Amino acid sequence: MKVKQYKDVELKTEKEAKGAGIRWLLSERDGMTDMAMRVIEIEAGGQTPHHAHPWEHQVFVLKGTGRVIAEGETQKFGPGSAIFVGPNEEHTFHNDSDETMEFVCMIPVRATSAYDH
Amino acid sequence: MKVKQYKDVELKTEKEAKGAGIRWLLSERDGMTDMAMRVIEIEAGGQTPHHAHPWEHQVFVLKGTGRVIAEGETQKFGPGSAIFVGPNEEHTFHNDSDETMEFVCMIPVRATSAYDH
Repeated sequence: MKVKQYKDVELKTEKEAKGAGIRWLLSERDGMTDMAMRVIEIEAGGQTPHHAHPWEHQVFVLKGTGRVIAEGETQKFGPGSAIFVGPNEEHTFHNDSDETMEFVCMIPVRATSAYDH
Repeated sequence: MKVKQYKDVELKTEKEAKGAGIRWLLSERDGMTDMAMRVIEIEAGGQTPHHAHPWEHQVFVLKGTGRVIAEGETQKFGPGSAIFVGPNEEHTFHNDSDETMEFVCMIPVRATSAYDH
């Protein structure tokens, strides 16, 4: 068992992102074999890179309101939204609120080597 | 892509649990292939069953303070805590606060057939 407070985990700047950072809460370094948990933070007006990858995302929104754009479709979200982005969907998250957006973002642990973490 | 508000997803009573319920936000029914996302709610003074299973849990706490007991070890948690419970660890979550506890709980999608959802 491990318990961490998310604010105690370093916030790293996301490369190729406008005003976005990431906290790697739980990954293979903690003994995970299936899933990795991160918290993504996006400044007011910021966004994540528009990109695609062969693994799915599952997101739970903690703070802020915005839009997710995937495969040309746009949906709004806010605190308490659960979001699924499927494998290979081109996607980006925009913070349209005037506060820092925070959301939990899960990926399969086999995909973590694609990230600088 | 799918976006759901967690409060719009039915709260089902957890069998063999004292004052606990579960919302199945995202699972294989939504096209997930890797992970399933649920929100667990525990009433004040309630707890989840003390049990073990061969898959890991990853938890992010939204509301309430309490204890997780795994393999005889106890750790406290509160809003913003990220918790990992490893495969086959006997574990239970207790709500020690006077409000309904809410946490996001992830499992591998291959494990969902073990649950009534």
